Amino acid sequence: MTTLAVGVLSEHNSSEHRVALDPSATARIVHSGMAVLVESGSGTDAGFDDHSFAAAGATVTTRADVIAKCDLLASLGFPPDSVTNSLNSGQAVIGLLDPFNNLDAVRGLADRGVILVALELLPRTLSRAQAMDALSSQSSAAGYRAAIVAAESFGRYLPMMITASGTAVPAKVIVIGTGVAGLQAIATTKRLGAVVTGYDVRAASRAEVESLGARFLTSSVAAGTGEGGYARSMTAEEQAAQQQELAAALTAFDIIITTAKVPGRIPPLLVSAQTLSALKSGTVCVDLGASDKGGNVFGSVDGSTHTTVDGVVVVGGGNLAAQLPTSASQMYGRNMSAVIDSLASQGAITVDPTDEIHASIVVSHHGGITSPAVRAALNLPPLGSTDSMKVQVA
Amino acid sequence: MTTLAVGVLSEHNSSEHRVALDPSATARIVHSGMAVLVESGSGTDAGFDDHSFAAAGATVTTRADVIAKCDLLASLGFPPDSVTNSLNSGQAVIGLLDPFNNLDAVRGLADRGVILVALELLPRTLSRAQAMDALSSQSSAAGYRAAIVAAESFGRYLPMMITASGTAVPAKVIVIGTGVAGLQAIATTKRLGAVVTGYDVRAASRAEVESLGARFLTSSVAAGTGEGGYARSMTAEEQAAQQQELAAALTAFDIIITTAKVPGRIPPLLVSAQTLSALKSGTVCVDLGASDKGGNVFGSVDGSTHTTVDGVVVVGGGNLAAQLPTSASQMYGRNMSAVIDSLASQGAITVDPTDEIHASIVVSHHGGITSPAVRAALNLPPLGSTDSMKVQVA
Repeated sequence: MTTLAVGVLSEHNSSEHRVALDPSATARIVHSGMAVLVESGSGTDAGFDDHSFAAAGATVTTRADVIAKCDLLASLGFPPDSVTNSLNSGQAVIGLLDPFNNLDAVRGLADRGVILVALELLPRTLSRAQAMDALSSQSSAAGYRAAIVAAESFGRYLPMMITASGTAVPAKVIVIGTGVAGLQAIATTKRLGAVVTGYDVRAASRAEVESLGARFLTSSVAAGTGEGGYARSMTAEEQAAQQQELAAALTAFDIIITTAKVPGRIPPLLVSAQTLSALKSGTVCVDLGASDKGGNVFGSVDGSTHTTVDGVVVVGGGNLAAQLPTSASQMYGRNMSAVIDSLASQGAITVDPTDEIHASIVVSHHGGITSPAVRAALNLPPLGSTDSMKVQVA
Repeated sequence: MTTLAVGVLSEHNSSEHRVALDPSATARIVHSGMAVLVESGSGTDAGFDDHSFAAAGATVTTRADVIAKCDLLASLGFPPDSVTNSLNSGQAVIGLLDPFNNLDAVRGLADRGVILVALELLPRTLSRAQAMDALSSQSSAAGYRAAIVAAESFGRYLPMMITASGTAVPAKVIVIGTGVAGLQAIATTKRLGAVVTGYDVRAASRAEVESLGARFLTSSVAAGTGEGGYARSMTAEEQAAQQQELAAALTAFDIIITTAKVPGRIPPLLVSAQTLSALKSGTVCVDLGASDKGGNVFGSVDGSTHTTVDGVVVVGGGNLAAQLPTSASQMYGRNMSAVIDSLASQGAITVDPTDEIHASIVVSHHGGITSPAVRAALNLPPLGSTDSMKVQVA
């Protein structure tokens, strides 16, 4: 029996500080009989030095060595061309690969026999999948971080303060979109003593928001819940109605945290230019939807903060999990080791097409694209049955 | 009866965002029959535009006009030469004037008949003085801000998190020096879910620290309490013993917040170079004692953040209240209006030498230095009795 090797490359740059495996996850993978190869310096920004990986049983080596020798590459995002160009048939890449925004690269790698595993495609409502749910774990980190960044950008106390020097009223916070990130932002701003409101088009969110002690702002736009527990994307009329109802409500708040992302799509604009200009000076907007394709707040720039002419602070926070790199990497490492555990057994990568998780997250395998969602995005015909995964790319 | 005029100048720059009066304090002063003159743009960084001051009854005007016409100048710190050079006999400057570090300027202004009122000299244990206690109000803002900045600089969650992606243990925080700033830092890191310890050489602090739900780390250095409720300054042997005991204790913590300032003196070094190098990578030190004369943490630079070669983040936070400018200015404005109320009556500035507060905070008056503490610092003989305030400078 050969020993499978899991590889980790450095992905950190000015806006990314995480690493795909932390030393704890490394130790778990090594304990289960696999080797782990880590590029030197991969964990620096997340607080894990080479020594901590070595102590966990990894081999710390060069980037080229990791790429050449690993069977499974644990990755945060889609690897750059310099990496993918060197991958061979049978090697696997596992990560938040954002396949719908990387369709050409996905197709090219599939052609070459590379196995791609996209964690976004996890059927997250399955209880067995929860330990693998990287989207949730990173959203949780992002939501916590959004609250900290909001407090940091705000000129006033969040809690009520009753002192000899006067009484400060608590800050009024609204969190728009109460998925994992939104609930964590609610919990953390509540911890800090703010008065918090949650808003979501899914009426089912009310109970979760209220269980955290926050008020729920009922939306008149009854968009409801889409696939996989996400909000479904709305029609143009629904979006306009939502913008209008938010415009009227938002001027009452000091801090606005928006978290509306629809997987594979352009994020909805929730705070329009007009709404933004009507906000009080000193209001802070933290936009977790910020991306290079636009965000939830007009004019937000992912990864940077600016103040509008009206004195509103707009924080573009599309990748805030990366700003909590130690915790985020620890959780991601746990997700990654669970996925690897599920895919790797007896010295081989084994994709089981009858396994609901494998059928969802495995994008390409044996030279073909097997994910139904990605096939649809590529205008490929659906596969006849789950046991015909070994198809040729059309 | 003439109308007294209170002046406010812009003091904001890259590290100062506060303003000495906010619109609420302005309205209170106007209501009590005085005029308020505000330099245009003074409140911008604190979120108060010219319109908000005008709406509160102030006259918004030029800097030169404020300086020429005001009877009392409300100030955060010691005004720059460009301002003090234009002040005339009978004009008063009220603020955190740091007289012991501005002795030459104090003497020059006293000679010229300028009335200087230093809020640091307030007998803060008097209950009547508490509304005027700017040192406390600004320390409270700084302590809150220290917790936010620590959370912002830390790579992990502060609270415990139990999730499908693993359990995160809560961050361990120690706050050294549990005065107003320290207690606020304890309260805020507790709010965020950290496990918090307070350390102080004043054993009397234990009850306050424990009442916030934090652990108290008993010091073997029994320095006790000095004048005005501050820690007294320690001998060289006591400081060495303290450094040693802290060195042993601090490696167990993730976040270290130091708040040791002794008025008019160089801050004590609590985290030595050796201690700093023994801390875990990723540890965050927030040094509220940071100043241009050194701080509580080795190598801290006031107003900037750096990471040591061992991966420890050191935040130089000597003026963190300025980073919470709206709340800090609101509290400062309340302090300032209380002081002005006490000094200004019937259209005149009236210093009552039998008033314990006046006797403490008024540094110079009628051409003489009247503060006993400042006279001592200038090697001037003590005044014979409190009613002989109208002395000539020796």
